[in-house]
Amino acid sequence: MLIGSQDVTASPVFQAVDPSVGKTLEPAFAEASPAHVERAAKLAAEAFPIYRETSPEVRAAFLDGIAAKIEALGDELVERASRESGLPLPRLVGERARTTGQLRLFANWVRAGGADEPRLDPALPDRKPMPRADLRLRHIGVGPVAVFGASNFPLAFSVAGGDTASALAAGCPVVVKGHPAHPGTSEMVGRAIRAAVVEAGLPEGVFSLLTGTTNELGGALVADPRIMSVGFTGSRAGGLALMRIAAARPVPIPVHAEMSSINPVFLLPAALEARGDALGAAFVGSLTLGAGQFCTNPGLVIGIAGPALDRFIAAASAAVEKAPATTMLTPGIHAAYGKGVAELEGNAGVTSLARGIVGEGANACGAALFVTDASAFLADPALSKEVFGASSLIVRCADAAQMLEVARGLEGQLTATLHLDAGDHSLARDLMPLLEERAGRILANGWPTGVEVSHAMVHGGPFPATSDPRGTSVGTLAIQRFLRPICYQDLPDDLLPDPVKQANPLGLPRLVDGRPMTGA
Amino acid sequence: MLIGSQDVTASPVFQAVDPSVGKTLEPAFAEASPAHVERAAKLAAEAFPIYRETSPEVRAAFLDGIAAKIEALGDELVERASRESGLPLPRLVGERARTTGQLRLFANWVRAGGADEPRLDPALPDRKPMPRADLRLRHIGVGPVAVFGASNFPLAFSVAGGDTASALAAGCPVVVKGHPAHPGTSEMVGRAIRAAVVEAGLPEGVFSLLTGTTNELGGALVADPRIMSVGFTGSRAGGLALMRIAAARPVPIPVHAEMSSINPVFLLPAALEARGDALGAAFVGSLTLGAGQFCTNPGLVIGIAGPALDRFIAAASAAVEKAPATTMLTPGIHAAYGKGVAELEGNAGVTSLARGIVGEGANACGAALFVTDASAFLADPALSKEVFGASSLIVRCADAAQMLEVARGLEGQLTATLHLDAGDHSLARDLMPLLEERAGRILANGWPTGVEVSHAMVHGGPFPATSDPRGTSVGTLAIQRFLRPICYQDLPDDLLPDPVKQANPLGLPRLVDGRPMTGA
Repeated sequence: MLIGSQDVTASPVFQAVDPSVGKTLEPAFAEASPAHVERAAKLAAEAFPIYRETSPEVRAAFLDGIAAKIEALGDELVERASRESGLPLPRLVGERARTTGQLRLFANWVRAGGADEPRLDPALPDRKPMPRADLRLRHIGVGPVAVFGASNFPLAFSVAGGDTASALAAGCPVVVKGHPAHPGTSEMVGRAIRAAVVEAGLPEGVFSLLTGTTNELGGALVADPRIMSVGFTGSRAGGLALMRIAAARPVPIPVHAEMSSINPVFLLPAALEARGDALGAAFVGSLTLGAGQFCTNPGLVIGIAGPALDRFIAAASAAVEKAPATTMLTPGIHAAYGKGVAELEGNAGVTSLARGIVGEGANACGAALFVTDASAFLADPALSKEVFGASSLIVRCADAAQMLEVARGLEGQLTATLHLDAGDHSLARDLMPLLEERAGRILANGWPTGVEVSHAMVHGGPFPATSDPRGTSVGTLAIQRFLRPICYQDLPDDLLPDPVKQANPLGLPRLVDGRPMTGA
Repeated sequence: MLIGSQDVTASPVFQAVDPSVGKTLEPAFAEASPAHVERAAKLAAEAFPIYRETSPEVRAAFLDGIAAKIEALGDELVERASRESGLPLPRLVGERARTTGQLRLFANWVRAGGADEPRLDPALPDRKPMPRADLRLRHIGVGPVAVFGASNFPLAFSVAGGDTASALAAGCPVVVKGHPAHPGTSEMVGRAIRAAVVEAGLPEGVFSLLTGTTNELGGALVADPRIMSVGFTGSRAGGLALMRIAAARPVPIPVHAEMSSINPVFLLPAALEARGDALGAAFVGSLTLGAGQFCTNPGLVIGIAGPALDRFIAAASAAVEKAPATTMLTPGIHAAYGKGVAELEGNAGVTSLARGIVGEGANACGAALFVTDASAFLADPALSKEVFGASSLIVRCADAAQMLEVARGLEGQLTATLHLDAGDHSLARDLMPLLEERAGRILANGWPTGVEVSHAMVHGGPFPATSDPRGTSVGTLAIQRFLRPICYQDLPDDLLPDPVKQANPLGLPRLVDGRPMTGA
């Protein structure tokens, strides 16, 4: 473990497993105890007053430094990540680029004032009936943030992933609870962050990495009174458990949990008629990407019964049957996938369409495709459950009205997708408001896997996709989860923080009397 | 009650009390039943898809219309509010101006794009290794919002107060649970809102007003699955109860509760030396304003022991002794005030300095001033409890170090105030970071009562001042509590909502590739 500047070993220990061969990997990693949680949280709280007051340039250079130091780890990082996750090297090379690009995007966003968002309402001493005081607002970090690494993106949603990047950009120290499936990868990335902390001359408590396998560890971290916010990507049960702990604290705190989504794909009639076969093949490409282990995996496909949907089903089934089995992230995820698929197979309302090639290796995910009727789908909430992995359910509707009914019955989602042609716009217009109220991102004629890291991205959505639809865990808007506003009234200029000083020494864009002003 | 377009009467009933004479006021008002909650929430949910898609101009004209219709109620409104609250007419005339000004500020903020905040990341088809899709983000309302009227501002924090104005501005229908202390005022304002709903041609469910006296009513409203967010101003116990209900729902929702604050005032040595007497008199003016019934009432004053603090204490005590007793809002609040003051009087570590003039009328609040030593204050959490009313506690510190220790021991606050001169800046610099982490607004050389409604205002702060320090319930930033982002990926232009259409038909300012662009 990396607690501030200290390397910490302890017993008991645990080891990662190479899921492709089912063998444990050296070395062993420590199980964090309550005392370790305590120490990491204490250091984070001590670091907060100093770190939150770093200038945009210092904080941005720190984020850039993390990116550079992750790159400097070279092939060793992606090779370890591949062994610990079963994910292929090219995928991890791409994920590393996304991770470092994300850190640099936040660095530039901080430089542009995205962490301060200052507002000035100048004094109006002559206003009647009452003068107006001089009011200046800026944002600061909420305090130390606990980040839970996810298993499915050992780089981009883990130790230096989106939650860490946005919390650090906001000026919040971070205590990461590393995912136990990739402790070696976590340690390498954690050391890169720590080296960047040293290089930037920041207090050691800005970053700590705790390792361990127990739910108690995560619970103790969220319960610690110095932790002020939580970023989590994982299962619905895990997210709900953390939400309960956070709400029961003497000082309740928000949990930003990204949990569960089946990412419905609507095949509208004209598009389906025009290219049912091609859509079927492309769909399976998205479904089986990364063994289906994406939060945005298309787990539900909705179409209107007829020959065009039959062509889609035939093409998709053929593609599934040819899909090679790929290693899943952990034996636990593999077992849960098997259970989820078996439940669908055993459901009287569901027909099994196709299974992928049975794999030789350990923990291999054979893709699975099912079909059901809309009436059965609407009657059985079990069919809306996320099966994490390359399994998907096609829902056959009698007509457009029933397609709308299925949309109305959906829980909150990260994404909703429409495949449409010009002739489908009328039906799409009926679907759009239903999807807007149920999803964080709506796509046309694409596939939901693949999440751009940019300013306009939303990786969030209504419950249970996330714990709070007002946030996103990807893109620059993610920083707002970890910021709070402070107003300064009539403070002497030399006591004001730089972002709201009269002379605007940082050159930030500011809202003056409600009007945007550039910093120049 | 006003449920959508219907006037609803029911039994049992309750009546308001004129607190200045302790007599019930005609007429009687209905106690809302679960069926009434159900109907108001259903109408709100039906109205949401239509109301959230109104153009900025339609929504702004609606908010302006509410303001105009409140003004059109004339003196009858402030007279009824005065009878129901015991607050004097001039104060209520001012509060009405603040309420209508607030509605118009939000109207103009919506016109300026403050409810949409669009972001565009244009497609990059030639980017390597992967093209970028066309991404467009806008915000929509989170859904129907439950608003709890507060007792102490029967206009500005009640039926058409800041929570209602910001929720309506965000595109959310509102179901108000009116405060039972001013049901007549609530009904008049509710009718004004309803008339504005009709005039704007909006669905009836955009606004409903439920009345009643029970905790069960509020609980049922927050538990209703169609309610997606909550705005509350009131007691710590009340806010915590709603937070528990909201967190226990199958779909948990945020509660924006503004609860409890004692608003510490720090008297720094040079300022105290220069004008201890004047500060003492001015302090009592702020303390007794509105019978001390402000969320921002200065309930704690911290100074360093010595002759200058003694002068402050003498001047403040003299002012308190001359302060006339004023009617409190309700018999319940009056009784709680008496209990709080008695607890301080009975505390062995506390000395009673002065009591205001004993009032003749019912429910009159006699101001109360106490003093204690910092060591006693730090040792007894009971001394940090809010006493709602014109009671304040002076904390005498041995030195500057102990003043900092007192600051470190404070819970979250809405405000923190510094009285300082040039010679105090060094000590102020030590205090500032402690106060930033504990308060939503920091003032210099003023008094915390009086909250400007503007862009840079923050009326919020860390727990228990509010349930979530990321929000404010006053000022244009308040709208963000009720908005969520949605991303559109590669949608055909004619399916995109106006705020993110390529031609920018609404002329909104938008963030394009992270750079602010005016709508012109």
